[in-house]
Amino acid sequence: MNASPAATQSESRRVTVALGDRSYDILIGEDLIGRAGRLIKPVLAGNRVIVVTDESVAKLHLDKLTGSLTEAGLDHSAIILPPGEGTKSFDHYAGLMNELLARGLERKTTILAFGGGVIGDLAGFAAATALRGIPFVQIPTTLLAQVDSSVGGKTAINVPAGKNLVGAFYQPRMVLADTRILDSLPRRELLAGYAEVVKYGALGDLEFFEWLEKHGSALIGGDHAARAEAVARSCAAKAAIVAQDEREGGLRALLNLGHTFGHALESRLGYGPDLLHGEAVAMGMAMAFSLSVRMGLCSGQDAERLRRHMAAVGLRLKPTEIAGVGWDTDDLVKRMFKDKKVEAGRITFILARGLGDAFITADVGESDLRATLDEALAD
Amino acid sequence: MNASPAATQSESRRVTVALGDRSYDILIGEDLIGRAGRLIKPVLAGNRVIVVTDESVAKLHLDKLTGSLTEAGLDHSAIILPPGEGTKSFDHYAGLMNELLARGLERKTTILAFGGGVIGDLAGFAAATALRGIPFVQIPTTLLAQVDSSVGGKTAINVPAGKNLVGAFYQPRMVLADTRILDSLPRRELLAGYAEVVKYGALGDLEFFEWLEKHGSALIGGDHAARAEAVARSCAAKAAIVAQDEREGGLRALLNLGHTFGHALESRLGYGPDLLHGEAVAMGMAMAFSLSVRMGLCSGQDAERLRRHMAAVGLRLKPTEIAGVGWDTDDLVKRMFKDKKVEAGRITFILARGLGDAFITADVGESDLRATLDEALAD
Repeated sequence: MNASPAATQSESRRVTVALGDRSYDILIGEDLIGRAGRLIKPVLAGNRVIVVTDESVAKLHLDKLTGSLTEAGLDHSAIILPPGEGTKSFDHYAGLMNELLARGLERKTTILAFGGGVIGDLAGFAAATALRGIPFVQIPTTLLAQVDSSVGGKTAINVPAGKNLVGAFYQPRMVLADTRILDSLPRRELLAGYAEVVKYGALGDLEFFEWLEKHGSALIGGDHAARAEAVARSCAAKAAIVAQDEREGGLRALLNLGHTFGHALESRLGYGPDLLHGEAVAMGMAMAFSLSVRMGLCSGQDAERLRRHMAAVGLRLKPTEIAGVGWDTDDLVKRMFKDKKVEAGRITFILARGLGDAFITADVGESDLRATLDEALAD
Repeated sequence: MNASPAATQSESRRVTVALGDRSYDILIGEDLIGRAGRLIKPVLAGNRVIVVTDESVAKLHLDKLTGSLTEAGLDHSAIILPPGEGTKSFDHYAGLMNELLARGLERKTTILAFGGGVIGDLAGFAAATALRGIPFVQIPTTLLAQVDSSVGGKTAINVPAGKNLVGAFYQPRMVLADTRILDSLPRRELLAGYAEVVKYGALGDLEFFEWLEKHGSALIGGDHAARAEAVARSCAAKAAIVAQDEREGGLRALLNLGHTFGHALESRLGYGPDLLHGEAVAMGMAMAFSLSVRMGLCSGQDAERLRRHMAAVGLRLKPTEIAGVGWDTDDLVKRMFKDKKVEAGRITFILARGLGDAFITADVGESDLRATLDEALAD
């Protein structure tokens, strides 16, 4: 395995995602955006870069990025899209493709995704499908995107039938995770991203979970060293799994800890602003551990310890804490059966034998599932 | 190399496209459609198949195919699209994705493309991008699709900026090339497909070209053994090239012999019914050999021999034979510079040192190019 974090210089870390001829590096550190042009230049196929970003990110950070691209002698332009999940649509995808092609995109042109998960997913799918695949670089600007979207090559758009149902596996040539850019992130988004960080501890690394119990609050409060450490460990954890199962045939499903429940909650709220993806994952992890306890797989103590840490940093754990939403177990069960991971009518769950010890199973009784939801939805 | 044709039983041949874990077989023979269910079953991930086809193919052949799927115990349904190049659009792609997902497509559902190049390209792109990639099987129903689209994994749709500019490389799990189904193909389409067969001889296999000189007319006239031989040799030739260069980094460009010119002609006619793709390739090959002669690379004899064979089977070689079209060298040169293979403003040409000896070059003077076009467009 070539996926452990290693400090290469005092100010930045490197995690290699080992995928044969699709291998790439994630650089993690302060102010990488100001050096982005020089950092990415060695992995480009040509001299031309088209930045895809959204209005919010552009306003705050685009000048700095484009300055560094100019400084590195790169030919660049930017496409600025509206912010928000609505941008991951067929219409925006078609519009983006037409715009890229109208700009004379060639096979050696690089698409640089500069934004959160929406921009990364959409621009990545555009890179995967423009001229049947052109070079792609990611600069994720949210904690969620840094620890989740930057590893694994999942790109997608949303369609009427559901989220992320159209897309491709497509690996970037490099990812820059700038811990400084997280300073401009609203606290709520930072927290939502932190839920995915906790996930890596909860699913496979008790020691990392313990580290988070000690340093999580500092990380959220703005400690850059703690952020870099957490991003590097999260990316390394994900990279180790993805290296073994690039196309989600098996092991990779572990990364869905909290997601089977979480997606049902998000779906109920129409993927709207009342529940961010990471917030749903936090609630979903609490439920997955509750279900594991109910099935006699995991100690109540471990489930409680997970809940305690997430609550301590400020994550909400009960769907009922969201004002003005009526919840219903039947409805959520139906939504779970519509997930794209359902196979021959069976839902795959990620359950746990304890903190740091998750596993994949389709062997969950509906009564245990319903009881877990009933409990989670009770006041 | 594992890409040579070999007769496995008296009635069918097998060509293996060797691409590591994406390797697959092409079966070539009479009446494979009537046995399709049993033939494809071993490579499916699950029991469910969604056939994507067009109205013309459905009318003639769908009952036979679905009968064989039923007989093999497969769960199947069909999506029938309008025939014609217009179906390879963003709108049809979006509509097809929505329809597939509305039918409860799962990761182990197989998409079976049953039609010509339009259906193969569109259904292949759908398979590549539905749930980030699901199993895909092709039953090409035209000679062109059997010798071209069935090897290489190119899938695509057309966009306002040009043909095939949005797509993916995505390999099928199996291809069935049924020589009997070609009996229902209009002679003009058969001839257009034959141009791509000639291409394999002209670009790299003088012996195959000689075989075609002997058997080409019989093949077009309905000789099934000759068809099977020609399809197998064409697929094996393409497979040998694709196995070395799956994503068109270099060698694979050889397959574009006749295409740089041909695409410009097609583009001028709006990819309409006045000039089929294969017809354009025939004209383009004649021009590529003329250019090679003009540049002192190839003997005039070889160029003439290629023209003579294509004319002998009935292929038109001069754009001016198409009634009612005004041609202009400037216009065609401009169109050539818009091709997606243009790199840093340079056009890649496939030229020849002789029959069976093509090579890739970007080193063509504009005056030679223009003189070649002027000559081809003269009455």
